[in-house]
Amino acid sequence: MAVGEFALIEQLQGRLGGGGKGVLLGMGDDAAWLDPAGQSLVTSMDTLVAGRHFFADVDPADLGWKALAVNLSDLAAMGAQPRWCLLSLALPMRAEGYSPWLEAFAEGWHTLAESTGVALVGGDTVATDGPLTLTVTVLGVAEQGIMRRDAARPGDLIWVTGTLGDAAAALDLAFVARGLPGYDFAGPATQAQALEARRLRPLPRLDFGRAAQAAGVACALDCSDGFLADLDHILKASGLRARVDLEHLPLSPALRDCIDQDLVRWQRWPLTGGDDYELIFCAPPSLTPALLNIAHSCALPITAVGQILPADSQPTESVDIYWQERPLALPGIRGHQHVF
Amino acid sequence: MAVGEFALIEQLQGRLGGGGKGVLLGMGDDAAWLDPAGQSLVTSMDTLVAGRHFFADVDPADLGWKALAVNLSDLAAMGAQPRWCLLSLALPMRAEGYSPWLEAFAEGWHTLAESTGVALVGGDTVATDGPLTLTVTVLGVAEQGIMRRDAARPGDLIWVTGTLGDAAAALDLAFVARGLPGYDFAGPATQAQALEARRLRPLPRLDFGRAAQAAGVACALDCSDGFLADLDHILKASGLRARVDLEHLPLSPALRDCIDQDLVRWQRWPLTGGDDYELIFCAPPSLTPALLNIAHSCALPITAVGQILPADSQPTESVDIYWQERPLALPGIRGHQHVF
Repeated sequence: MAVGEFALIEQLQGRLGGGGKGVLLGMGDDAAWLDPAGQSLVTSMDTLVAGRHFFADVDPADLGWKALAVNLSDLAAMGAQPRWCLLSLALPMRAEGYSPWLEAFAEGWHTLAESTGVALVGGDTVATDGPLTLTVTVLGVAEQGIMRRDAARPGDLIWVTGTLGDAAAALDLAFVARGLPGYDFAGPATQAQALEARRLRPLPRLDFGRAAQAAGVACALDCSDGFLADLDHILKASGLRARVDLEHLPLSPALRDCIDQDLVRWQRWPLTGGDDYELIFCAPPSLTPALLNIAHSCALPITAVGQILPADSQPTESVDIYWQERPLALPGIRGHQHVF
Repeated sequence: MAVGEFALIEQLQGRLGGGGKGVLLGMGDDAAWLDPAGQSLVTSMDTLVAGRHFFADVDPADLGWKALAVNLSDLAAMGAQPRWCLLSLALPMRAEGYSPWLEAFAEGWHTLAESTGVALVGGDTVATDGPLTLTVTVLGVAEQGIMRRDAARPGDLIWVTGTLGDAAAALDLAFVARGLPGYDFAGPATQAQALEARRLRPLPRLDFGRAAQAAGVACALDCSDGFLADLDHILKASGLRARVDLEHLPLSPALRDCIDQDLVRWQRWPLTGGDDYELIFCAPPSLTPALLNIAHSCALPITAVGQILPADSQPTESVDIYWQERPLALPGIRGHQHVF
């Protein structure tokens, strides 16, 4: 390391490295020293690369928010309480330097970190010849237990929090706005801002996740790869199948305005689009009243969109998709657009 | 994500994601669930970028070892016991794919992980248009307390474990071998292999760190940026100065063979060269017998190289460097060669 790196670390430390619950020693030493107060730990790590996970010209405040949010969403899916995080920034050289950029990044990060009680306790800052790359590790505590993806049971209802497809629609609109070939959706201009806000600043469902776990929900994961792909993770891990009623997938008013009965869009946005950061969870019907109460107290709608089915001895698709009570065959729905 | 990413994660999981002490739920869910058994936690994160922190054509087995080792070294400096880690791989697209590369990487990683009792519990795998970039987060437990960089006291002896400068000399030799302009050291061919082994497979000083902390050492850090820069971190954090006797810096036989009385090399390799991953620690002279006993039982030599001095009211250099009892003025010794 040399001067510039230390200066950036000190800037981050000054803006974000304040104390926090259970922080015995925060940023500035070889490692952080933390006190989980006898609780078990939950930890996850996510990496975002410019040009792949976000536009290189993203507002750094939005990036700061999202880098933390996508990690917190993993803790929400476990029903854990976030406490601490570490941040690695691989920064391409820029003639104008990173100081104002880091200030804005820290502001967006801080807004979410403060409201969710997460302290930055360490990390790294390096130079790269490649795109800006961020890696975040979050650490939380589990008060009682956790929710896991292999715990679905036949007969469970499949629920999702909030609404699906907004971020994927917003991404398409952003591609249209940038004139990318192949993106020719007629953009619903009046709704674009609402969709874009969901893409840029997802809200990790932490309160709901913790309350659902405490109420007895055993199976959840966060919806980041697209609803169908993520549900498939649950089904593979649990060794089960499912039925999903496509028209039940919850849509925001903005998305509903521009999706109508267009099945291509239903497939592209709420069914297989990514970056929702909602929770998918499975629970026996007996838990429905408790779950609706939790949803009400979190001011977060939840929607039952299907049901877990027993494993089939015949090798078939793991999800039967219905549209208004009729089985639906959609072409190519397993292929989610990503680089790897 | 799509197929390739999941396949790589499954491959890593299969090779490295086995259980471990305190692993309640390992790789494969949104997050890992860990039990620190009532102990406090120590955590650190480091990022390595191809072309900056390692040669892009590095043997992946060596890279796997080193990526873990440099992180474990941070825990060693705290006196912590490593338990778990998370690994993020940002991989450039390669026509030949990553499967054999990952196998070799996992082998090198596993060799060190197994001998130090560290379980891989999570991480991420993404594609990048830039260089291969690895980020590792390690988690350990502190049985009693930790060592920190701001805890030096006037009168403390300054000690280092092992030997300094090997990795820096090996890096210069590697540059010479690659014909980089400006690198014209006459390479000590017979010693090159020993030096290179130290550069490629550093040994985190975990046993010594834990024992030193338990014996009452309060101040330590790991020597990764170069001895002088790292000692300066201690002095700044502790608000103190130091005297260092340059000829006391411990050298390996291989390095001693090629350094002789060449002060430029003394300055360049053991004094300011990086990547040593030894521990620098400060302790009152009364601890010397106990420390020598620990060193003996760890089969790791330790060497006193100077002493902590009170803060000076005059603004001077924080370290007075002596060579055979005479003050030494070395040109440009504060500037360590790094990108930032």
